[in-house]
Amino acid sequence: MADYEKEIRALVEGWARAVHDGDLETVLAAHADDIVMFDVPPPHRGVRGLAAYRETWPAFFEWQRQGAVFDIESLDVTAGADVAFAFALLRCGTPEEFAEAPDRRLRLTLGLRRDDGRWVVAHEHHSFAIT
Amino acid sequence: MADYEKEIRALVEGWARAVHDGDLETVLAAHADDIVMFDVPPPHRGVRGLAAYRETWPAFFEWQRQGAVFDIESLDVTAGADVAFAFALLRCGTPEEFAEAPDRRLRLTLGLRRDDGRWVVAHEHHSFAIT
Repeated sequence: MADYEKEIRALVEGWARAVHDGDLETVLAAHADDIVMFDVPPPHRGVRGLAAYRETWPAFFEWQRQGAVFDIESLDVTAGADVAFAFALLRCGTPEEFAEAPDRRLRLTLGLRRDDGRWVVAHEHHSFAIT
Repeated sequence: MADYEKEIRALVEGWARAVHDGDLETVLAAHADDIVMFDVPPPHRGVRGLAAYRETWPAFFEWQRQGAVFDIESLDVTAGADVAFAFALLRCGTPEEFAEAPDRRLRLTLGLRRDDGRWVVAHEHHSFAIT
């Protein structure tokens, strides 16, 4: 599954760049209609469906314009024949936030499945540790 | 993969019962040596390896003795031929915490792989939304 791992790595890296660039269509391009996202803020039971997922991004892009970064620090991919998962650590925050908490990282987990010959993201979990 | 889905569902339900019962050996029984856990508290870059994972549990069991619950409310499993992921919502907290924030749920995501004919948990991500 080495090629699938490479394919998924490229997908996640491209998605993260699109998030940082505020490029909504690319952020959504490889996501399943039935995506369930556990986001940093509520709702506590998750954001369900692609339309709801889409709606979460504009406020985040607005926040990024204050100078925040969204950079992958490490990415692990486990790809099978038809299902995969990945987890990553990201630098996500403003310079002021990093000055206060330099070790803080966004933790990201993705669940993917192969639909019609391509990988799609069916689940995302974003969080910060609670100190 | 219907049987694998059933198998993983039983694995996760058994693990959650063992967590609630403070049964450490059963909590660890289906976990990979190279487990990476993103836990609710730090470390920000995750708990790495089964020995470190084991060490996180006694303090949690102690906290549960105050009357906290750890109950699965919903569980979704996507199982492939050799890799799977699952995500769940859990009621996790003390009666006092639920009185204050009744909708709060622990969000849990698991990454699994099939090693030597059995499913093992290689990744766990636990978090609460930040309000």
